[in-house]
Amino acid sequence: MPLPSPLPERLQALLGPDGFTTDAAECLVYGYDNSRQQAQADAVAFPATHEHVEALVRLCREFRVPIVARGRGTNTTGATVPVAGGVVVSFERMNRIVRIDPDNRLAVVEPGVLNGELQQVLRPLGFFWAPDPTSSPFCTIGGNLACNAAGPRTVKYGSPRENTLGLRAVDGTGASFRSGFWTSKAATGYDLTRLLVGSEGTLALITEATLKLTPLPAAKRTLRATYADIRSAAAAVSRIMAQPVTPCALEFLDDEALRLARQHGGDAIPVAGALLMIEVDGEEATLDTAVAAVSRAAEGAGLVELRAAADAAEVDTLWAARKALSPALRAIAPMKINEDVVVPVSRLPELISGLKAISAKYTIPIVNFGHAGNGNIHVNLLYRPDDPQQAAAAPDCLAAVFDLVLSLDGTLSGEHGIGLAKREWMSRAIDPVSVALMRRIKAGFDPDGILNPGKLLPD
Amino acid sequence: MPLPSPLPERLQALLGPDGFTTDAAECLVYGYDNSRQQAQADAVAFPATHEHVEALVRLCREFRVPIVARGRGTNTTGATVPVAGGVVVSFERMNRIVRIDPDNRLAVVEPGVLNGELQQVLRPLGFFWAPDPTSSPFCTIGGNLACNAAGPRTVKYGSPRENTLGLRAVDGTGASFRSGFWTSKAATGYDLTRLLVGSEGTLALITEATLKLTPLPAAKRTLRATYADIRSAAAAVSRIMAQPVTPCALEFLDDEALRLARQHGGDAIPVAGALLMIEVDGEEATLDTAVAAVSRAAEGAGLVELRAAADAAEVDTLWAARKALSPALRAIAPMKINEDVVVPVSRLPELISGLKAISAKYTIPIVNFGHAGNGNIHVNLLYRPDDPQQAAAAPDCLAAVFDLVLSLDGTLSGEHGIGLAKREWMSRAIDPVSVALMRRIKAGFDPDGILNPGKLLPD
Repeated sequence: MPLPSPLPERLQALLGPDGFTTDAAECLVYGYDNSRQQAQADAVAFPATHEHVEALVRLCREFRVPIVARGRGTNTTGATVPVAGGVVVSFERMNRIVRIDPDNRLAVVEPGVLNGELQQVLRPLGFFWAPDPTSSPFCTIGGNLACNAAGPRTVKYGSPRENTLGLRAVDGTGASFRSGFWTSKAATGYDLTRLLVGSEGTLALITEATLKLTPLPAAKRTLRATYADIRSAAAAVSRIMAQPVTPCALEFLDDEALRLARQHGGDAIPVAGALLMIEVDGEEATLDTAVAAVSRAAEGAGLVELRAAADAAEVDTLWAARKALSPALRAIAPMKINEDVVVPVSRLPELISGLKAISAKYTIPIVNFGHAGNGNIHVNLLYRPDDPQQAAAAPDCLAAVFDLVLSLDGTLSGEHGIGLAKREWMSRAIDPVSVALMRRIKAGFDPDGILNPGKLLPD
Repeated sequence: MPLPSPLPERLQALLGPDGFTTDAAECLVYGYDNSRQQAQADAVAFPATHEHVEALVRLCREFRVPIVARGRGTNTTGATVPVAGGVVVSFERMNRIVRIDPDNRLAVVEPGVLNGELQQVLRPLGFFWAPDPTSSPFCTIGGNLACNAAGPRTVKYGSPRENTLGLRAVDGTGASFRSGFWTSKAATGYDLTRLLVGSEGTLALITEATLKLTPLPAAKRTLRATYADIRSAAAAVSRIMAQPVTPCALEFLDDEALRLARQHGGDAIPVAGALLMIEVDGEEATLDTAVAAVSRAAEGAGLVELRAAADAAEVDTLWAARKALSPALRAIAPMKINEDVVVPVSRLPELISGLKAISAKYTIPIVNFGHAGNGNIHVNLLYRPDDPQQAAAAPDCLAAVFDLVLSLDGTLSGEHGIGLAKREWMSRAIDPVSVALMRRIKAGFDPDGILNPGKLLPD
């Protein structure tokens, strides 16, 4: 559907020849994300400044045209798919690192900066930004903030909500504001920063972020522990998280995930019922003690082998194999359903057992891996749409997974967000009063509902 | 003003003979807080259960009667003073520790539990809850959450916003909801938890909190560094915070504060231009390295002496003297104005110099101490209301302090909150669009404006 006249002309005039297009082919490629869902945008805008974004929102609001903020489309939930048409706002031109301030442990960036790019700039200064999604080389800070996207390091260093000091943003009326502070501590009014983080572009467009930096640890050690079976590994995760030394990564791979990882990582990846990758970091002098503490917790019934990664090459192999899992699974099962459910760590054994039972009941293979230290498991339902029995069973199978997770005091998503994919489940995961409060907050920020309509909140 | 009939009778019936009073003397003592402001409540309610709170809010809403949530009144901003009358809701009967779950590093508590009491119960289990206000033995968890009250440990371990997983609460319509999750990670909808934390009872009444626990470090070392002057100490704070080892406390006392501390702590407290207390914690094996790192940073121009506290007794003396400062200053100047401003750490030297200049200009003594690692300084204006010149100058002097803080990219409060005391400053500290968004959020949670009216947001 073409945009109402004269909106395209006015947006073109605002953003310049390179800043706006209604070309159907361009609109098509900006209309999908890593959910493999797709919709046709009516236009794509490439603002270069905060003022562009502010004027753009005001114009779109005047014509009641939807606006979908987009980083690089690496999210897996359809959060950036323009299901109601309108203007996709790609932040690829707003990719400046505005300021790095090591003295105050903060960095100011535009939303289009890539996560990996920022980490590279920070490393020589002795700092990092904690969130590290697997897609780090390709995903933007803006997208990380929108989805509260996290990664392995979250278990020790927190998610974007714990690592963002302030934001500059434009609400759904085109009004600009700053949330948060330049300080590491504040008790001055409601916390709008954390409200925007994880709101998936439904409350405001973020045009600048002040990020909290963390000093790079001096050293790191990587352990791998193999277990006879999945339950034993899950029980070890609980024990590791119940003792004082918090690992900076505690990743879990089940037997099926290991088999696949071995195809990518070769013989360095062991055959086992399950594997844990355990990393501890800190001052070099501290690591022997830390390794001893997590090792004691990793030991127990079902442990097959616990050993330090032989060398840096083996660490790289382990991580490469772990990070290749999601794309590798997609190659096997293009329509796989990948959920990133979370349960309290002590409920992991029940989750993993329950998932095995669900897989058997619905005869759909389920491969599990993920950030076990947070209880955040990527549950991959490898269903084949061309198998009529599996295609028919998939929705019930997924429902059973979510029912299981909620019954274990868990939640729908640890780091992917809701987007389109889990919207209909929100009413089961969140109580009705909270959903109503979220709707009222949404109306307060975006009274005309033009910001990313059809996402996150249920209908 | 008596409550409209039959509200008192219905509240009495709801809460039982010990649960509700309109006795004027009782109402008087529940109508003040540590701001030394006072107002007459029309009634005091002592709910014992979540259901009591829910029913109470519904009844008060029916009669449009204000509700002021109250812990133990240790806050310093007037946040619990019932300026519009109505019912003060004291949570002293909701003081149960519901569940401690070390395996999942969480504790579930009612709001009336004292901070210090929780810490005592957690210690033998090897955990603590990070927020540790100086009033820890007397202040409630509910009050800590309402004010985002923090304390010295915040510099390493975060404030309540970083240490709360979820809440149960009742909004201004009497509707009950749960925010947050039982997991350490989530990306499922808007973050209502962080919105309620720091909202000073204006959005909802918290009836239960799920707190994130942190493992107790095995060991701790305390250093004291004295400096020839305040600027040198402030510069050392910047250097300490710019290197990788984050201290678990980094407290600052200026010359006047030291003089006073010496009256309480005796000769163990040195005479100097300024003092830093620096604590590092962690595994015992790590502490030599950590002490060396912070020591290097503490050294520099103006350092007089840097040494480890001789023994546990000296550590206790240092802390006792530090913690006695606020009440001691109040004894000297009962009407002192105590602000807990925050600036980026690198701006501390400018803040401290600027405060000296302001003190000289208005001839009002200013004593400064506080949580320097967060840039959070308690600025005490020791004005005497019986001195006409000082009484006249105090408002301008305070305005100059806030102007200075804001000019340094700082903010009004690090941990005390806004309450009545800083309300009129909110419009200068927070941009008008953000204030408008906060108002809309307030209206979404409390459409009739009955929850703690006249607090936090400007008129």
